[in-house]
Amino acid sequence: MTLFARHRALLERAVEASKTRSFWTPFPEVPSGKFYGETAREDGKNAYDSLLGYDFDLPGHPQEVRLGAEQSPWGGALGVSYPAASVETLIAASESAAQSWAEVGVEARIGALIEALVRLNGMSFLIGNATMHTTGQAFAMAFQAGGPHAQDRGLEALAAAYAEMTGTAQQAVWEKPQGKHAPIVLEKRWEIVPRGVALVIGCNTFPTWNSYPGLFASLATGNTVIVKPHPMAILPLALTVRVLREVFAEAGLPQDAVLLAADVPEAPITKALVQAPEVALIDYTGSSVFGNWIRANAHGAQVFTEETGVNSVTITGTDNFKGMCANLAFSLSLYSGQMCTSPQNIYVPKAGIETDEGHKSFDAVIEGIAEAVDALLSDEKQAAGVCGAIVNPATLERVSRARESGRVVRDSGETGIGRSATPLIVVTDPEGVAHREECFGPVAFAIPCTDAEAAIVAASDIARDKGAITAALYATDQTLIERAARAFARAGVNLSVNLTGNIFVNQSAAFSDFHVTGANPAGNASLTDTAFVASRFRRVMIRWPKTA
Amino acid sequence: MTLFARHRALLERAVEASKTRSFWTPFPEVPSGKFYGETAREDGKNAYDSLLGYDFDLPGHPQEVRLGAEQSPWGGALGVSYPAASVETLIAASESAAQSWAEVGVEARIGALIEALVRLNGMSFLIGNATMHTTGQAFAMAFQAGGPHAQDRGLEALAAAYAEMTGTAQQAVWEKPQGKHAPIVLEKRWEIVPRGVALVIGCNTFPTWNSYPGLFASLATGNTVIVKPHPMAILPLALTVRVLREVFAEAGLPQDAVLLAADVPEAPITKALVQAPEVALIDYTGSSVFGNWIRANAHGAQVFTEETGVNSVTITGTDNFKGMCANLAFSLSLYSGQMCTSPQNIYVPKAGIETDEGHKSFDAVIEGIAEAVDALLSDEKQAAGVCGAIVNPATLERVSRARESGRVVRDSGETGIGRSATPLIVVTDPEGVAHREECFGPVAFAIPCTDAEAAIVAASDIARDKGAITAALYATDQTLIERAARAFARAGVNLSVNLTGNIFVNQSAAFSDFHVTGANPAGNASLTDTAFVASRFRRVMIRWPKTA
Repeated sequence: MTLFARHRALLERAVEASKTRSFWTPFPEVPSGKFYGETAREDGKNAYDSLLGYDFDLPGHPQEVRLGAEQSPWGGALGVSYPAASVETLIAASESAAQSWAEVGVEARIGALIEALVRLNGMSFLIGNATMHTTGQAFAMAFQAGGPHAQDRGLEALAAAYAEMTGTAQQAVWEKPQGKHAPIVLEKRWEIVPRGVALVIGCNTFPTWNSYPGLFASLATGNTVIVKPHPMAILPLALTVRVLREVFAEAGLPQDAVLLAADVPEAPITKALVQAPEVALIDYTGSSVFGNWIRANAHGAQVFTEETGVNSVTITGTDNFKGMCANLAFSLSLYSGQMCTSPQNIYVPKAGIETDEGHKSFDAVIEGIAEAVDALLSDEKQAAGVCGAIVNPATLERVSRARESGRVVRDSGETGIGRSATPLIVVTDPEGVAHREECFGPVAFAIPCTDAEAAIVAASDIARDKGAITAALYATDQTLIERAARAFARAGVNLSVNLTGNIFVNQSAAFSDFHVTGANPAGNASLTDTAFVASRFRRVMIRWPKTA
Repeated sequence: MTLFARHRALLERAVEASKTRSFWTPFPEVPSGKFYGETAREDGKNAYDSLLGYDFDLPGHPQEVRLGAEQSPWGGALGVSYPAASVETLIAASESAAQSWAEVGVEARIGALIEALVRLNGMSFLIGNATMHTTGQAFAMAFQAGGPHAQDRGLEALAAAYAEMTGTAQQAVWEKPQGKHAPIVLEKRWEIVPRGVALVIGCNTFPTWNSYPGLFASLATGNTVIVKPHPMAILPLALTVRVLREVFAEAGLPQDAVLLAADVPEAPITKALVQAPEVALIDYTGSSVFGNWIRANAHGAQVFTEETGVNSVTITGTDNFKGMCANLAFSLSLYSGQMCTSPQNIYVPKAGIETDEGHKSFDAVIEGIAEAVDALLSDEKQAAGVCGAIVNPATLERVSRARESGRVVRDSGETGIGRSATPLIVVTDPEGVAHREECFGPVAFAIPCTDAEAAIVAASDIARDKGAITAALYATDQTLIERAARAFARAGVNLSVNLTGNIFVNQSAAFSDFHVTGANPAGNASLTDTAFVASRFRRVMIRWPKTA
């Protein structure tokens, strides 16, 4: 039985889910022995520990030196070294695998790639530990975001690529009538042709979640891929590359269809990879500054990005004040605001709002959120479990500077575990500048607005101008909600309305939520719409007269 | 009954055809009273004549001046003047129509656009005359390419856009299980959001055929469009814009969703339009030199192109020598090589080939083609009917220079009607340079190759390096054909094998042949694959908790 046949039903279910957009996942998000086996937690931790301080093995991978400088935001160096090679060597190895990877065909590639995802799912506790200690995420989140949720996004990309590659006939008979004469009859056949070498540039905070869509989409469509992890978050992607290469080798496919481009902060190689003329596709997650550099310097490559943005919460009223505050407290605290989906600016009418607890002044609204954050983080262990650790020391400096931008309602503190910072909440002058740019990390700016309409205008304007991946709205007036929906739609940002309970604006579910719209500066790629996969390959035809 | 309801069955048939890729067209290509009405031919000619020398009326269109300088390659000035306005005025008018055009929704737009295509089909004789006298095509070709074939491509783009916009759920209920607790239930709704102002830059040779895909795809996906015709081929697109605006007005849609940007060669406005920051989509047909300028100067717009290329014929053997020569003679003569699909380089083994007429030397093969061209063009009227006229005087200079690049086997002559040039056939040194670039017009370079394999390598290499939209192969050895298929697929060019009779490598049929692959330098857009439509719009979601 081929790998494609083995996984066909799963693939078809994934294609269906991506069309209906209702809830579906094949990869359990709960880190429980019930799903992953009784000893999975311990086995995963042991497997992680056994990697620390050793050479990471990637059989057959190009290697000129070994390097690696990862440090856990929870403390300590990982001490793992990876095989590394020059850009020229990596490109040459990738190109040498290109023809056979392209010509094995859609089903062989898709089958192997789903097999790799299923194996990665079985390793989710190991991946969770590797993600935790490279990103600073708390374990529960690292397990979910680094493991099953990333695998969901990978499968979603495979489903989109498969649907697109097989959506039109791969062969046809074309019979053109000629009046009283015999028709002209041609046979036609189409091949899927890849673009070339694809480059996937990972980020420090979500090494697998943000890389899997581009990685799996490019591989599925026949491109060979060079995975360039962030130098401080190599391990989760090195594990991924190893699984892919193992599956490829077992299936008789070219291992070098996927390569790891490890580097260290002192000697980065990303720019050289971007500038290689062989690179035809680039997937990038990171700042708009470097995104602009890529667009200006890539050699004609198609570039897919997720970039800088300013996410907002607009509060115009609620019939569940406590639920709203608790929900926002979690959204602000989760991974200390280091998610691309974390809210930053909180727009509230200066005259306050109406709630189920009566009128609340502007200050009372912000105070309610601050108190909910305090309550959420009152226990040290729970605080660390929600906030995780700060992945980049520069974020701590950013928090310090943000304190100067207004009146501090809730100061940022430490959880007590790892390099940490809890949410800072600052009331800022609407005319100020601090809140007009992304301030990555646990910083919330509360901004008094003339009224509800002005709050919606301010929130949607900044999304349109500076980019945004999420927007949240609390409102009780349905016509105001519909007006807001149009404003945020025009600003190209997805809107979550009146979330309370165990669902948060930060969350983006594969197969249902398109992640990033592509319609504002926060990124041009939407996970996973057809545009994300359709231009990764081309179709080439051969036609000839049909013989009787 | 809405326009969408009226045309729904046609739309669904078009969507089906674009998936099966078998023969289909709703717009008859034969310029006959049987399909278009007994008086259609005469009516169309009279309608055309009545436009000559007058102001072209576009009710409600922005107008600051009137201009127009079209000259028929068949002789005489058209004397038609068009309303024209500054780039600022056009952009402002386009933007003022944007919101209502976006918000009327998919069905209202698609219904109106199909209605416009159906009306344009009814005007095919007028469009045919307008196309003939702006492009230099002979009438029969101008009717087909300017009329029904262009309409086919427009409908194909609408079908692709409709399928893509409706391919995923527009609303969903997302229910996430929570173990023993009640599930989380969200309602979600997605809006189609356009990119902005779209610019369609037409060419002189195929003003409607090459513009309709981008024009109809951008309008269907909610963008407003500014149509920038070539200054010497305005009339066919002015007629198109008028019909669209008429339908929009009747349907209560904003007329300025489509605008005409007329200019004259002395004061071109294309660059200013490309550089306008509001322009988010550009469709362009023309030289790679200007294509590169667009890519370097557009303000972040998504650019779809058809550009320069070198099409080839590779002859390694045939079992129908006369049929091959006659077929190639027509391909070389049709519209005097001014098609983006016209063959230019003819690669033949220097030792000759085996045929149904026995061995033919290299010279005998080229001589056979030259004689077939002579036979095809022996009658002046038929010669003009096949070759048409030369649209740009610079082409005549190019033909003169090409004479110097080798041994002339067949010289270019005149048909006797209009500004004309019949095919020049020159045997060139394979080491020469003339055949290594596009030589637009009626020029064929015959190139002796070491053997059949070398001929395939040369033809596929130039397609990969310089771009190509078509490649033709004549061969009798099936394993050689399969090897060639792989080589041309890797070069990203569609291959036609052993065409004889009434089907030619130049021809590209909507709903079956993807025109341009996007996989070599001859263009990045393929008509009409999903990539051509999917990135013209984005999806934006609103989600909220479902209330019981």
